Amino acid sequence: MSSQPKGMSRRDLLAMVGMAAGASAMYSAMAGMGYAGTSDYKGPVKLEGDPKGASVLVLGAGLAGMTAAYELRRAGYKVQILEYREKAGGRCWTLRSGDSYTELGGYTQKVGFAEGNYLNPGPWRIPSDHYAVLDYCKRFGVKLEPFMQVNYNAYVHNTEAFGGKPQRFKEIQADYRGQIAELLAKAVKQDKLDEAVTDEDAELLVASLKRYGVLNDDLEYVKSEKVSEHRGWEKQPGGGVGAEPVPSNIISLSDILKGKLWNNLITGESIDHQAAIFQPVGGMDMIAQAFEREVKDLITYNAKVIRYEGGENGVTATYVDAKAGGAEQTVSADYCICTIPFSVLGQIEHNFSAPMTAAIEDVYYESSIKVGLEFKRRFWEQDDHIYGGISYTNLPITLISYPSTNFFSDGPGVLLGTYSWGAAAYQFNAIAPEARIEKALEFGAQIHPQYRDEFSNGVAVAWHRVPWTLGCYGEWRDKEKHYPAATAMDQRTLMAGEHISFLPAWQEGAILSALNAIERLHKHIIG
Amino acid sequence: MSSQPKGMSRRDLLAMVGMAAGASAMYSAMAGMGYAGTSDYKGPVKLEGDPKGASVLVLGAGLAGMTAAYELRRAGYKVQILEYREKAGGRCWTLRSGDSYTELGGYTQKVGFAEGNYLNPGPWRIPSDHYAVLDYCKRFGVKLEPFMQVNYNAYVHNTEAFGGKPQRFKEIQADYRGQIAELLAKAVKQDKLDEAVTDEDAELLVASLKRYGVLNDDLEYVKSEKVSEHRGWEKQPGGGVGAEPVPSNIISLSDILKGKLWNNLITGESIDHQAAIFQPVGGMDMIAQAFEREVKDLITYNAKVIRYEGGENGVTATYVDAKAGGAEQTVSADYCICTIPFSVLGQIEHNFSAPMTAAIEDVYYESSIKVGLEFKRRFWEQDDHIYGGISYTNLPITLISYPSTNFFSDGPGVLLGTYSWGAAAYQFNAIAPEARIEKALEFGAQIHPQYRDEFSNGVAVAWHRVPWTLGCYGEWRDKEKHYPAATAMDQRTLMAGEHISFLPAWQEGAILSALNAIERLHKHIIG
Repeated sequence: MSSQPKGMSRRDLLAMVGMAAGASAMYSAMAGMGYAGTSDYKGPVKLEGDPKGASVLVLGAGLAGMTAAYELRRAGYKVQILEYREKAGGRCWTLRSGDSYTELGGYTQKVGFAEGNYLNPGPWRIPSDHYAVLDYCKRFGVKLEPFMQVNYNAYVHNTEAFGGKPQRFKEIQADYRGQIAELLAKAVKQDKLDEAVTDEDAELLVASLKRYGVLNDDLEYVKSEKVSEHRGWEKQPGGGVGAEPVPSNIISLSDILKGKLWNNLITGESIDHQAAIFQPVGGMDMIAQAFEREVKDLITYNAKVIRYEGGENGVTATYVDAKAGGAEQTVSADYCICTIPFSVLGQIEHNFSAPMTAAIEDVYYESSIKVGLEFKRRFWEQDDHIYGGISYTNLPITLISYPSTNFFSDGPGVLLGTYSWGAAAYQFNAIAPEARIEKALEFGAQIHPQYRDEFSNGVAVAWHRVPWTLGCYGEWRDKEKHYPAATAMDQRTLMAGEHISFLPAWQEGAILSALNAIERLHKHIIG
Repeated sequence: MSSQPKGMSRRDLLAMVGMAAGASAMYSAMAGMGYAGTSDYKGPVKLEGDPKGASVLVLGAGLAGMTAAYELRRAGYKVQILEYREKAGGRCWTLRSGDSYTELGGYTQKVGFAEGNYLNPGPWRIPSDHYAVLDYCKRFGVKLEPFMQVNYNAYVHNTEAFGGKPQRFKEIQADYRGQIAELLAKAVKQDKLDEAVTDEDAELLVASLKRYGVLNDDLEYVKSEKVSEHRGWEKQPGGGVGAEPVPSNIISLSDILKGKLWNNLITGESIDHQAAIFQPVGGMDMIAQAFEREVKDLITYNAKVIRYEGGENGVTATYVDAKAGGAEQTVSADYCICTIPFSVLGQIEHNFSAPMTAAIEDVYYESSIKVGLEFKRRFWEQDDHIYGGISYTNLPITLISYPSTNFFSDGPGVLLGTYSWGAAAYQFNAIAPEARIEKALEFGAQIHPQYRDEFSNGVAVAWHRVPWTLGCYGEWRDKEKHYPAATAMDQRTLMAGEHISFLPAWQEGAILSALNAIERLHKHIIG
C-alpha cells in the first residue's frame, strides 16, 4: 500500500483492509504504518451503555474470574462469584510461612519457611509485554520488582559432561558464541559463502562477527584479556602490587557441543523471558490479594459447583460447601462467565452443547512440579556469587532458580529447587511431598554441595494433584477445531481463563480472555 | 600436574608452583584444582600486629582514602584525612534535588530534580564480581537493587540506517543471531567446513545452531511463530475471540550489517556489565555516605593540599581552605596514603622521586560527559514499554539509560540522556551546561519524540571540568614502565585509587588498591 486514499482516516483505512483481507493483512498494514507489536490490551476496558440490571454469575475467583467480576460491576452489572477455595487467586498463588496445603490424595503440607520467604507454585514472572497484568498491578497498587531470569554467573550442568561439574553460564556463552563466530568469519573470509553473502556484506559480516564473537585480528577466538573480559578471568584484576589479571582458558567448541551445554543459552531470550521481566514484591499472590480486595464482597468461598445449567432464561449453578458438604444451594443469574478449568468442568454435571462439551474434553492439563527449598543461609550468593537467575541441569529437577529479592541479606532463603514438566514431573507426582523434597535435595546437591548442610525445610507442589485445577495449564489437542466452540456463547455462558487464550499458562492470557469475554457479553446484552 | 607430592599441603604446592613458574602458571594450577576466577578480595582485611602508635595521613576522602582510613584505624593506627571538598566520596557522587555544583570555569548548576530522583555523574553500576565493593556495602548497610543493563525492548539506533528509525534490541538480536546461525549451519551441512569441524561435531553443531538461532527444520531463519517468540510479534497473542498472534517480519542480515546495529549486541555481556549487576538504592553516593559515617571524625574538609613533602622522618602536607583561602596549615604523620588523582597531584608541589614523578606525569585523565534529564512522566515506560536498560545510538549522546528503580511509578523520572567519551565528550565539554542539556535533548528527541513535551530540567557533568579530578579516570600511557614506581613506597608514601589498579574507573579498583597499599604499609611497619 503506497498511498492513502483521500478523505479516509487511518482508522477507516485499517478497517477496510481488515474486512477485505483478514486480520493478518490488517496487521501487516498496521506494521507498515508504525504500529508493530500491538497488544490486545489497550488500557482499561470501557463497557459503555446501561446493562439495565442484568446479572452475571462468575464461576471461579482466579484472575480471569475476578477481572470479569470487577469490570462488570463497574459497568453496572449485578455480579456474584462462586469460588471453590477458601481464598481467591487460583493459580496466582503463593505459599508462605504458616500456610497449609492439602493436595489430591490427602497429603497435607504445612509451610515452615521463615517470615518473608515464599514459593510461587504457579506463575512467578511477569514479562514486560504483559500489558494487562502490569496495568492491573498499577491500578491496584501491586509493587513490582525485577525478576532475574538470566545470570551469567549461574551454572549450566550436564551429568554427562565435564565430569558432571557445573560450568558457569558466562563461560559457555562466551566460548560458544566466540567459536561459532570464528568458524563463520573464517568461512566468509575464505570465500566459502560467496553464493550466500555479497562481497559488500561479507566485509561487514566479518567485522560484526569479530565484535560479536570477541575475535582477534586473525579472526580467532583465543585465550586473551579481551576474551576473559567476557568469560571471566583465571585471576581477577586487582589493585596495587601483583594485581595483573590472568586470562582464563577457553572451553573447546567440541566439548561444549558434546556436553550439550548450549541448550539453555537462549532460554532467557524469548519474549516471555527476556529483560525486563518482573515479579510482585512479596510473592505472586500480591496480585490475587489486590484483586480480592476489590471484589471480596462478591465472592462466596468454599463453594464447590456440582451442577450447572444454562439456557434461554438464564443460568443456575448448584454447589455444596467444599469443606463441610451439606445441603445443595443454588445461585441464578442472567448470564455466566465460567473460568473453571476444563479439567474440573468436565467432571461437573452440565448442559453445554455438544461442540462445547467436545471442546471441554479436548483440553488436557499439563503436569508440572515445583519444589521450594529453604536453606539456613544464602550460600549461592555468599559462596557462589550467584544473585538471582537460573542454573540449568539435565537432572530431573531441570533447574534451580535463585531468589530475585532481598539480595545480600542474611538468614534463610528459598530456592526454587525443581521446576519440571512432563516425564520429569511424573517422577515427582507419584511420591509423597517429603520424598519429592528429598529428591530435589539429592539432585540439587550435585550442583550445590552445600545443600545437605544448609537445608532447613521445603514444600512441593505437583500440579496434577492440585484439587482446583488438576494440572498446571490447559493444552489443546486440536485447538483449531475446538477453540471457536469454546469461545462461543453457549447456554448464556462464556468461558474465560488462560485456556481460552493464545497465552496459555500465563496470567496475561487469563485476564485478556476475561476482558474479551465481557466485551462480547456486554455487546450481546446492550445490542 | 597429575598428583600431589606427599606431605605437601595444597597451599605449599601452589606456593612452589608460583615461585618456579610465575603467577600465570600458578593460577593455571589453581584453576585445575577448582580455584578459577579468584579475586584479590578475600573478605575483610586483617592487619595483625600492633602498629605502636604509628600515624598515617590519608590524602583524599574518596572510596580509596576512606577504605584505607577505616581499616588503618581499626588496626590501631592514628589516622587523619585531608579532603578538598566539603563532603566525602570523590567520584562516588550523586546529584539530587537542591544540590549545587560548580565546575572548573565557574558554571554553577543547581539541581532541580524532584525529590528522590538523581544522577550518578560517576560510577553507576556494581558488577557482581566486585567483591570488595559488595562486601563493604553489606558491612556498612548499603541497600542494593538490580541495575538493568540489557533491555530487549530498548532501542538500537543509527541515524544512517532504517531511515533513522530506532529498532528494538530484541529484533536486531534475534535476527542477527538467527541469520548468522543459518549461514553457519548451512555451510556445515554442505560440508564446507570439513577441515574445521569433525563429522561428529558437525552434527551437534548444526543441532545447536538450530536451537541457538531458532532455525526451522530446513535450517532457515524465517518469519514464523517460533521466531516471533524471540523477536516479538506483529500482533501479540490475546485471549478469547480474534486472539491469534500474527508473526512479525524479519530484518534482513544485509540491512542489519549495513545499519551497524550489531555493534551493541554484546555490550551487556562483558563481565563488567553482565547480569547480575547492582546499584545502591537511592544513588551511588549511598556508599560514600556509608563510608563517611565510619570515618567522618577523621576528615578535615575543604582542605586544598598545596604542598607535600615526605622523607625519612615522616610526611607533611600543607593545605589551605579550599573555599576561604587564608593561612597555610600543615599536618604531619609517619606515613601517607595518597589517593589524590595524578591529574591533580601533578600540579601540587611535592618531593617525590624522579620515577614517581614520571609515573604521575604518565597518567592522563579520560574525558567523559553525563547528562541527566528529568521528564515530567516516565514516557519510556508508559509509551515505549521500556523498563530500565539502555538504548544505543551513533549520535554524540552515545546512549540513553532508563532508570532501574521506581518502575511503573507516576511523576517525573530522570534519564541518563548522554554518556559519552573522547571526541563526543569534547563537544559537550566546550559549551555551557545549559547548552549541553539542549544538545542532549536535541539528539535524544530523535529516539524519543516525547522529549520536548515532557522535559522538565537537567544537569550536565563534564569530567574534565570537575575540579577535584580534572577527568574521569586515569589512563596510563605506558603502564608497564611506570606502574611499578607508582606502587612503590616513595617518601614514606603509598599511592592508592582506581589509577593504581587493573580495574581503572571502577570503585572496586579504588578499594582494592587501598587494601593492597595498607597491607604493604602495615607489613613495612610491623616488619
